[in-house]
Amino acid sequence: MTTGTDQIRVPSDPTANDALIADFVTMSTFGATQAGGVERQAATAEDGANREWLSTWLTDRGFTVSYDRVGNQFGLFELVPGAPYVLAGSHLDSQPRGGKYDGAYGVLAAAHAMNRLRNYYEAHPKAAKFNLAVVNWFNEEGSRFKPSMQGSGVFTGKITLETALTTTDSAGTTVGQALGDLDMLGEHDVFTVGDHHTEGGLMVASYAEIHIEQGRELDKAGITMGLVDSTWGANKYEISVVGSQAHTGATAIADRQDALYGASLAVVALRDLADRYGDSLHTSCGQLTVYPNSPVVVAREVHMHLDLRSSSDELLDDADEALNRAFAEIELKADVEIQRRFAHRWKGHTYTPEGVELAGRVIDDLGISRQNVRTRAGHDSTNMKDVVPTVMLFVPSVDGVSHAENEYTHDQDLITGTDVLTETLARMAEGEL
Amino acid sequence: MTTGTDQIRVPSDPTANDALIADFVTMSTFGATQAGGVERQAATAEDGANREWLSTWLTDRGFTVSYDRVGNQFGLFELVPGAPYVLAGSHLDSQPRGGKYDGAYGVLAAAHAMNRLRNYYEAHPKAAKFNLAVVNWFNEEGSRFKPSMQGSGVFTGKITLETALTTTDSAGTTVGQALGDLDMLGEHDVFTVGDHHTEGGLMVASYAEIHIEQGRELDKAGITMGLVDSTWGANKYEISVVGSQAHTGATAIADRQDALYGASLAVVALRDLADRYGDSLHTSCGQLTVYPNSPVVVAREVHMHLDLRSSSDELLDDADEALNRAFAEIELKADVEIQRRFAHRWKGHTYTPEGVELAGRVIDDLGISRQNVRTRAGHDSTNMKDVVPTVMLFVPSVDGVSHAENEYTHDQDLITGTDVLTETLARMAEGEL
Repeated sequence: MTTGTDQIRVPSDPTANDALIADFVTMSTFGATQAGGVERQAATAEDGANREWLSTWLTDRGFTVSYDRVGNQFGLFELVPGAPYVLAGSHLDSQPRGGKYDGAYGVLAAAHAMNRLRNYYEAHPKAAKFNLAVVNWFNEEGSRFKPSMQGSGVFTGKITLETALTTTDSAGTTVGQALGDLDMLGEHDVFTVGDHHTEGGLMVASYAEIHIEQGRELDKAGITMGLVDSTWGANKYEISVVGSQAHTGATAIADRQDALYGASLAVVALRDLADRYGDSLHTSCGQLTVYPNSPVVVAREVHMHLDLRSSSDELLDDADEALNRAFAEIELKADVEIQRRFAHRWKGHTYTPEGVELAGRVIDDLGISRQNVRTRAGHDSTNMKDVVPTVMLFVPSVDGVSHAENEYTHDQDLITGTDVLTETLARMAEGEL
Repeated sequence: MTTGTDQIRVPSDPTANDALIADFVTMSTFGATQAGGVERQAATAEDGANREWLSTWLTDRGFTVSYDRVGNQFGLFELVPGAPYVLAGSHLDSQPRGGKYDGAYGVLAAAHAMNRLRNYYEAHPKAAKFNLAVVNWFNEEGSRFKPSMQGSGVFTGKITLETALTTTDSAGTTVGQALGDLDMLGEHDVFTVGDHHTEGGLMVASYAEIHIEQGRELDKAGITMGLVDSTWGANKYEISVVGSQAHTGATAIADRQDALYGASLAVVALRDLADRYGDSLHTSCGQLTVYPNSPVVVAREVHMHLDLRSSSDELLDDADEALNRAFAEIELKADVEIQRRFAHRWKGHTYTPEGVELAGRVIDDLGISRQNVRTRAGHDSTNMKDVVPTVMLFVPSVDGVSHAENEYTHDQDLITGTDVLTETLARMAEGEL
């Protein structure tokens, strides 16, 4: 066990730090929006260009780049022939008009950290037990193709490959077509994970990810590093509210089966549910589409995506029941039918305790402030922690803004986070996790 | 004044009736949907094909077809050189997945009626005082290009030509471009109406329109003909609900400015308003669009179209005030801003009493059941009644279904309505209105 700053393998370095910030500025030009955000939805031209840039960056530094069968992008560097890999990364895709830090920072930090480790272990060839790999997971955001965390979901066996590849966007394009058009769909897998992902050959020893917090706890408390020790569970639903198309002027209120009225009652019921449980339950509806969506036509159908999130799986079960009761009341009140089309659930879980401890020691050794945090948002690490020892780190997000163009993290926090990630990965590569 | 069935100029005729139904079946193939409706939004290819078919039908029977500067389509037949025209028609455009009767029946009934009058007056050349014209108004529905009743709105000076021609659909195409592409945009006007529409030259003596009821009063009462004696007033609004884009998982409920939550509260408030006033107020929201509309993003903005309709202008004023108070409460409750982007209003009005009387006598002479009705929906006649003596007739609509693919009117009612329209137009052509 290491203690004290004299044990740091790869100390912070002004040249490396400047390169990180410069690369982040360059990368943020892919899909840049006027308001300072990015729009790089999964497997669009902008996402493809950014991936291409990352490939070049990695290849220039001696990494071997390859894609697996669901378009996850890996940069591999072998230190110990035949040994498993320490994997680190996040995702480069964004929400529509999203922020430039969400995911992208984690991929770039991982690439820089691994590159610093490559230099270090070339000078210390006996120190490493494992090999190094960077990953850019496909479609973490789930805006163009649903659900979210799709690439890591397939990687960890939670979604079948076929289901993912045949998923369509609103224009009817499949994931397989979109990735094929970019020439970013591998014919084989890269890694073998459990019995569901057997084609690869390489093994994963452990995984680390760094991300902006997307909440304001660290920012409010003035703490630099967050150690994610657990995640909220989530229930996600797709529902259809089915009514009957009619003329808005001529149809008496009593005769209406107004799908949009029913959907609006559902949105309000969802918020009432959150208010009832206090801050331990988050409920949201971010996507709602009206058919036919004409000003003088009572809507015949509305499609909605809902989510419920909580730290307590039991509370989620309760909330789910309460929502069903609210739906039954809405069906009567608005004279509509509410159909559940899809449900997706992930339970709340703790992150690898040894990973939390390891990163905690690194942060202390570097003399940086830290606190444990619980993530409400899902991340690729939420999938990875269930199959390999995993570390998840947060840096502060100013005012907690996320999934928005004004998402912001200070450069110094980006640098500190990368230093922490580098040192954590070094200890992982030497077998401390 | 005529009384008794012996005064009927153009009695019902099995050959003419069969031709009407056959033509209606043919016309309903333009933009036909699988579920038995039509989709022929204004100035689309389907609308254009239907208009082309009507042109051929009219030209084959000796009418001269021309378009005015906003794409209203006229078929003119001169009986009395230099005299004003009796005009009859409705609109061929439809809602998305709309019914096949709404508007289309009125145009075809007018064409058949005018053609029967042409035959009759060629045999009785001294009887007519006025000339005959059929009209297919541009964009009555207002679904692709807003607002509704656009062609008759320009014709009657309620909308300026320039405003109409520069209106864009959701793809950014203007009315002028869409009509120009179909080659259905005239360089000059056809008729002169008041001082706002001076280019035409021809004068309108009076106007008649027949339409399905789009309500269930006639169907429920078992009455064949409705005489429209008044129209409901309407307030139409476009509003934006402005919030702040955020992550649905990570953002605490208290920190959200959820535009979709605000919009949903507005839809519910709108329905509550209707419930408060009973059946004398109709309120609707049929169009609602969410930005960015992603399942894991709290919406930053929602655009909505609302309408309030009532028989009482005073009640509309009250409801408008109540709605404003509700909006102010919603702004506080959801922490959003509600912006009014557009408002459009038409006051409730009576139809030409002499027109109601004339058509009532015709219906009695034909021995058909009738009752007076008030229209809640707007029609092109709602515009026309303010500039020339106007008759508006309804035939029953089974179960009051409208703006939906299962809209249905019995063939016999289509035939009877056309007989009533024919005889009413004959008396109008002879100067009785």
